Amino acid sequence: MKKLPLGKVPKDVLLNFVLKDVHCYEDVLLPPAFGEDGAVVKSKDNLIIAASDPITGASEDAGWLSVHVNANDIAVHAAYPKWYLVTLLFPPNTVREDIANVMKGIKKGLEEVRASLIGGHTEITDKVKDVVIIGAMIGEPMIPGKFITSGGAKPRDDIILTKGAGIEGTLILAVDFEKELVKKVDKSIIENAKKLRNKISVLPEIKTIIQSFDIEYIHAMHDVTEGGLLGGVHEMAYASQLGFEIYEEKIPILKETKEICKVLNLDPLKLISSGSLLIATDPTISANIVKMLKQEGINAAIIGHFIEENPGVGYLIKRNGSKEIISEPPIDELWRFLSMRSI
Amino acid sequence: MKKLPLGKVPKDVLLNFVLKDVHCYEDVLLPPAFGEDGAVVKSKDNLIIAASDPITGASEDAGWLSVHVNANDIAVHAAYPKWYLVTLLFPPNTVREDIANVMKGIKKGLEEVRASLIGGHTEITDKVKDVVIIGAMIGEPMIPGKFITSGGAKPRDDIILTKGAGIEGTLILAVDFEKELVKKVDKSIIENAKKLRNKISVLPEIKTIIQSFDIEYIHAMHDVTEGGLLGGVHEMAYASQLGFEIYEEKIPILKETKEICKVLNLDPLKLISSGSLLIATDPTISANIVKMLKQEGINAAIIGHFIEENPGVGYLIKRNGSKEIISEPPIDELWRFLSMRSI
Repeated sequence: MKKLPLGKVPKDVLLNFVLKDVHCYEDVLLPPAFGEDGAVVKSKDNLIIAASDPITGASEDAGWLSVHVNANDIAVHAAYPKWYLVTLLFPPNTVREDIANVMKGIKKGLEEVRASLIGGHTEITDKVKDVVIIGAMIGEPMIPGKFITSGGAKPRDDIILTKGAGIEGTLILAVDFEKELVKKVDKSIIENAKKLRNKISVLPEIKTIIQSFDIEYIHAMHDVTEGGLLGGVHEMAYASQLGFEIYEEKIPILKETKEICKVLNLDPLKLISSGSLLIATDPTISANIVKMLKQEGINAAIIGHFIEENPGVGYLIKRNGSKEIISEPPIDELWRFLSMRSI
Repeated sequence: MKKLPLGKVPKDVLLNFVLKDVHCYEDVLLPPAFGEDGAVVKSKDNLIIAASDPITGASEDAGWLSVHVNANDIAVHAAYPKWYLVTLLFPPNTVREDIANVMKGIKKGLEEVRASLIGGHTEITDKVKDVVIIGAMIGEPMIPGKFITSGGAKPRDDIILTKGAGIEGTLILAVDFEKELVKKVDKSIIENAKKLRNKISVLPEIKTIIQSFDIEYIHAMHDVTEGGLLGGVHEMAYASQLGFEIYEEKIPILKETKEICKVLNLDPLKLISSGSLLIATDPTISANIVKMLKQEGINAAIIGHFIEENPGVGYLIKRNGSKEIISEPPIDELWRFLSMRSI
């Protein structure tokens, strides 16, 4: 297989490996094309939501994940992800098939969230050691003129968590450390953990909530990423300038997460968890939201509440009644684990 | 100076070195903030223009340039750059001051084009060997509901070039190879070449044109980047599915570009040239556009025209009457020059 030269990819690679089979919905007036450096899209609303996040990795899954982490950042604002820009930086010795592979994942992710690829940049560069995928997603509100923030929580709001803590970390560990884990946990645990890729998107639960409840009662939403559940709640509290109390016993943790974290000695509450959604709602509707989500097949639980005192600082109340203070975003357990491995 | 750990930058760095002194215009409803992963902006139009481009480099200038190359990609669609998302990937051993330096350039660039920083991501990662800055710019039409593309040129349209060929390459060479050049060209040439940073934005000429002429007569615009002027005209021709004829003698080339290219044995027509704008216009107004731009202090010239024959292929007609066929984007002279140096 022929190695590609350094620099912007040649025209034939752009046309045959990047832009081939790219689907744009009808709101894309100027789709990505050789010779065009920007895209033009038509929105239904004058509010636009935008977010950007990088992912490292050479696989189809990395491309797919780049779409979902960016789509999640849009969805938490009660918005639909619509238009995706992606910059792909490949290291030297990249071949056409490597590009096709990452693009396959991107196209799959975009199909799942119903967004269009509208632009980006693809380059082979000796400035990167691994494939780096930088996405930027643009979206529009699910309800015209309305949006939700991470910082909109109010005192006495209940905190709802969907799915469980450590979802994404459990998936990553099951995929990357399968050989090691297979000696320590049941094979079915690993197989089920790998299926967690189907839970990485928070779009399904957000669609359900926004379609079913008065948006004025949904005060804040946030997706849990680096720093895990505790990092996510801290970020919401900081942005909302509120304190919080959450209860260890109420936090749903999947069996797969529990077992894998136990054998690797990791705290699931500090484990990266794209796919877990935090929702701050008026306490009058929180139980109904949990009920509705469960009816839709999405597990959820009220894990605590926000309080007026100690803005940005909160407590994890343990099963034994002791309190752990959370005043800073914790170092993610996945980074701690990986850094121990690389010594 | 303390090295930062790998991973997303700590909260204090985000607050004090990235987000400090970030100015958002009043159309930003949810500005970037710790704990918020997306931004919300209010547009005046239902058309949105978006583009994304990476820049490598650790300097204030690299940050500044990242804004302008992305703003140019928006401006060519007859749109104002408005909202910027930027992902900063720093290599290991980065200190806070490195981040502050790049951000200083970004803020300066944003002030110049009057755009807001609305989001992004800042991370220290061993996946990059140098600082990589990936920008995504979102904009809105200068005239509501209207936009221009690279692919809108019509047969018999005149091709106008602003400023000259090889602008950006001349600047880069003068800065990066000053010590070598100073032995071969007059010092004033180098000093003037360094001032070309003031010409990197194509926003001034585009504002002038769109404000002064009927947009229906401006059929296509494209900014010249990698592959230089010849690459830029080829891209426009390919996107418009037209052929072209351009005349070497009519192409403006600054004295600085001529001299620096001469001593380094480079072709200015294939030299990277952000800041040079290509415009395809109805021949009835092209002379007036050139006149108007000159009145505004921006040099411009009609360098040729598009033709119906040979879509995507064109000719450079040399001073001696011979024709050079352009059917592929040329390798940029800057890459050729740098790769010779690194052998």
